[in-house]
Amino acid sequence: MPKKRILSGMRPTGKLHIGHYVGALENWIKLQNDYESFHLIADYHVLTTGLETEDIYQNSIDMVIDWLAAGLDPEKSPFFRQSQIKEHTELFLIFSMLITTARLERNPTLKEQVRDLNIENVIYGHLGYPVLQSADILLYKGDAVPVGEDQVPHVEITREIARRFNNQYGNVFPEPDALLTKFARLPGLDGDAKMSKSLGNTILLSDDAETVKQKLRKAVTDPQKVRRNDPGRPEVCLVFTYHKKFNSGEIPEIEANCKSGALGCVDCKLKCAAKMNEWLAPIIDKRKHYEANLSEVKQILSDGEAKGRKVAQATMNEVREKMKLG
Amino acid sequence: MPKKRILSGMRPTGKLHIGHYVGALENWIKLQNDYESFHLIADYHVLTTGLETEDIYQNSIDMVIDWLAAGLDPEKSPFFRQSQIKEHTELFLIFSMLITTARLERNPTLKEQVRDLNIENVIYGHLGYPVLQSADILLYKGDAVPVGEDQVPHVEITREIARRFNNQYGNVFPEPDALLTKFARLPGLDGDAKMSKSLGNTILLSDDAETVKQKLRKAVTDPQKVRRNDPGRPEVCLVFTYHKKFNSGEIPEIEANCKSGALGCVDCKLKCAAKMNEWLAPIIDKRKHYEANLSEVKQILSDGEAKGRKVAQATMNEVREKMKLG
Repeated sequence: MPKKRILSGMRPTGKLHIGHYVGALENWIKLQNDYESFHLIADYHVLTTGLETEDIYQNSIDMVIDWLAAGLDPEKSPFFRQSQIKEHTELFLIFSMLITTARLERNPTLKEQVRDLNIENVIYGHLGYPVLQSADILLYKGDAVPVGEDQVPHVEITREIARRFNNQYGNVFPEPDALLTKFARLPGLDGDAKMSKSLGNTILLSDDAETVKQKLRKAVTDPQKVRRNDPGRPEVCLVFTYHKKFNSGEIPEIEANCKSGALGCVDCKLKCAAKMNEWLAPIIDKRKHYEANLSEVKQILSDGEAKGRKVAQATMNEVREKMKLG
Repeated sequence: MPKKRILSGMRPTGKLHIGHYVGALENWIKLQNDYESFHLIADYHVLTTGLETEDIYQNSIDMVIDWLAAGLDPEKSPFFRQSQIKEHTELFLIFSMLITTARLERNPTLKEQVRDLNIENVIYGHLGYPVLQSADILLYKGDAVPVGEDQVPHVEITREIARRFNNQYGNVFPEPDALLTKFARLPGLDGDAKMSKSLGNTILLSDDAETVKQKLRKAVTDPQKVRRNDPGRPEVCLVFTYHKKFNSGEIPEIEANCKSGALGCVDCKLKCAAKMNEWLAPIIDKRKHYEANLSEVKQILSDGEAKGRKVAQATMNEVREKMKLG
């Protein structure tokens, strides 16, 4: 039986942080063994919330390097940019005929963005974000899409569009399932629930040992633990969350010593930094290799795009045939 | 100085009628000498108001034959289908980021269609109709677009999008002008102000002499002219409108004899049919040639698509470069 297919994607926002790893990459790396995976660099999606494109290319390259350094295997799962495979836009246009504006306006993710970004007038392409995402997924006939909770409504729209197309023109597309990954979202260094580039509260996969130490030194901890020997509450401390991820072996000890006051925050952070750096070291090593061999990175991307394009074209040929577009 | 460019297009609705000729084709045939013309078969646009695609291909071929038979020269001005040049959809996607949904909802042509077609929920791609049209025009850097009054708001949207792109990414696109053609809209055989396939009140460019005679025989005339010798009112008679177009030399005589009652409707219609058939004869002859040589038609279309694609790709290369999409 052939492997099922998944389509995963990220917007190219530049160098990745450990929140990206925990929230998505780690899962993708596992999934690439059990599924036929396609990894999309969603560069057109960037335009839905801002027209600046100056950095898109460099950000894409930086992201690819992190994908490689973290362990995604481009032989198993091609990497490609949305903007380099024209078929994404063809299917987007066709799918745009299969859904009403009212349905798209009900999309809760859009509503959230409109609120959070203070958007007064929704851009037409922004309203169509889930339509483009449907094209991204269905162009590769994705059976499943690894997503966070917030993306589930988009997968639902994808299923509706697949159904609508199949009913109208004949069976071409699977109805993909959301592969919900119950990952712990990694909090930011400032205590925000989310690590995010725009909040400046991240540890990058590319941060060197000294940077990680400095960043952790400034991390927010339990505000009630003022002096070294004050008893702390690990359950409210973000550094403890990092320990859970990167230093799971020492958790019982750290928890006890924090609570008793035997472990001060400075030492606790140094322990955390050491473990994190140990974990980051091979990633940074691999990163250095790719940074020094950019042409290799570009070749990987270009090979991935050729592979992706082949699958995309085969799907579009089916679509054209079913639609009798000649 | 190089010729200015125009982009003209029609939806492929099948065999054309004399209303298409008077309303658009006649003008295009004139313009092809003064402009570099591109002729678009807007097959994707068909989807904005209905998902049936069964007949799109045949309708496109029928339309191309009529274009050729009527005198459009594919050497001067390539013919191509929107669906065969992927760059239309690429530019559509990019342009979809440059306009708000609110702006598109204000489009008066959309409002009219929603009313006339009793549309309850606007389809997302239908709302984006003028965005796709902007891509159609600007992909060929059209300086002008020959349109009817009802299309002027779309050209205005095209100008806005061109401006927005140029301001954001640098100069690529002209701001095209509407080339308003003050054509007399040809009334339908049933007296409706408009000749239209869906109303079944047309004379086709491909109708043979007998069919034209039969169709005209049933045409509505002045309802007050009941008997042969009753005085008629040419100004309210649609057959008189046809005389004006196809039999202009005899207008004073027909007008006088209709008013006096000397000319009965049956004879008047026979005169009209004769003149119309005289005018149609060479078109039908050329049509027969192309019907008997379908491979020639397909070759013309395929050559036109290659030419169109070349221009479209050059424009998209500029777009990508300005946007730094890599």
